[in-house]
Amino acid sequence: MKTKIGVLVSGGGTNLQALLDAQAAGGLPSGEIVLVISSRPDAYALTRAELAGVRAAVAVRKGRPQAEFEAELLALLAESGVELVILAGFLSILSADFIRQFPNRIVNIHPSLIPAFCGEGFYGLRVHEAALLRGVKLTGATVHFVNEIPDGGKILLQKAVAVEEGDTPAILQRRVMEQAEWLLLPAAAEMVAKSIAQEKENGYL
Amino acid sequence: MKTKIGVLVSGGGTNLQALLDAQAAGGLPSGEIVLVISSRPDAYALTRAELAGVRAAVAVRKGRPQAEFEAELLALLAESGVELVILAGFLSILSADFIRQFPNRIVNIHPSLIPAFCGEGFYGLRVHEAALLRGVKLTGATVHFVNEIPDGGKILLQKAVAVEEGDTPAILQRRVMEQAEWLLLPAAAEMVAKSIAQEKENGYL
Repeated sequence: MKTKIGVLVSGGGTNLQALLDAQAAGGLPSGEIVLVISSRPDAYALTRAELAGVRAAVAVRKGRPQAEFEAELLALLAESGVELVILAGFLSILSADFIRQFPNRIVNIHPSLIPAFCGEGFYGLRVHEAALLRGVKLTGATVHFVNEIPDGGKILLQKAVAVEEGDTPAILQRRVMEQAEWLLLPAAAEMVAKSIAQEKENGYL
Repeated sequence: MKTKIGVLVSGGGTNLQALLDAQAAGGLPSGEIVLVISSRPDAYALTRAELAGVRAAVAVRKGRPQAEFEAELLALLAESGVELVILAGFLSILSADFIRQFPNRIVNIHPSLIPAFCGEGFYGLRVHEAALLRGVKLTGATVHFVNEIPDGGKILLQKAVAVEEGDTPAILQRRVMEQAEWLLLPAAAEMVAKSIAQEKENGYL
């Protein structure tokens, strides 16, 4: 039985697209993306979900208490029977209470080789700005389980990407996406989905 | 005119051997290793230097003031006309005063992908212990210029190495040496030696 996957997004959804493409190409045999939730109503990721025939929902983050927002997320995830949550460019912080309800069931991708350039304050272009400022020759991406420490959970997969002469944060960000994120995230999704499916088969769940 | 290189060591000298082998194989055309100094009199690195026909000297660190030790280092380096200092498993900390005398002329190799697992307290097996403890899937090595911040100088070269199931710190250390350190250090030495040689040719020095 396939593991039901919910993907949380906030923006353009290129990592979501990588997951949808992998699924369409047979690269996610142990899982099924059943739900996409965006924290912003105008996220293009919602269109990507609809185009792929996946249920798309909005849980607005802005202008409301965190607990109310998370209660809506939980209700949406439960409705679709989601067993594995993937954060794919999801810009909201989840509370420890929320995270504790999905132990080793929330996966995140971070655009650096953790423990470099991670933790509080390191997101989006800032990660690549910091890497260029330090002058590293290699950066990359990391897929990890989410726990209560920012970017502190168990590491699942990492891939290195070369920094090149003349890179700007935006150029480097794009290369890290193309050469690492879009490959790692579907691979990690399949890895965890398979392990959950096996646990169910073995009767542990 | 070749750049005169001095190599500072404290132990077995496998990184020194990588430099000597590269030189013998024509991989260091812009530099010449003219001196090896060990901070310990029993370092096998001294034997490696002698076997390669390179001047080997001892400047004992233990049991004497830092300033006296560094004065001896400086005298030895000056005697041999050293223009580029390479730290190859050199376990003593150099003072800011010493470092300021060789701006962008001291190169160090660190067995991780800086900025991961570096800075004070991270040396030798401890680096690999920390990497295994954090559960990274990729580690590696970094060659960098030495400045007054521990492992804080400009990065010259980096290479990633995979962590494998069942790795111990010692196994991982050996793999990082074989797959990264022994390749990077000669390459960086040639890169910097060439740039110094060119500056001399251009009359900047």
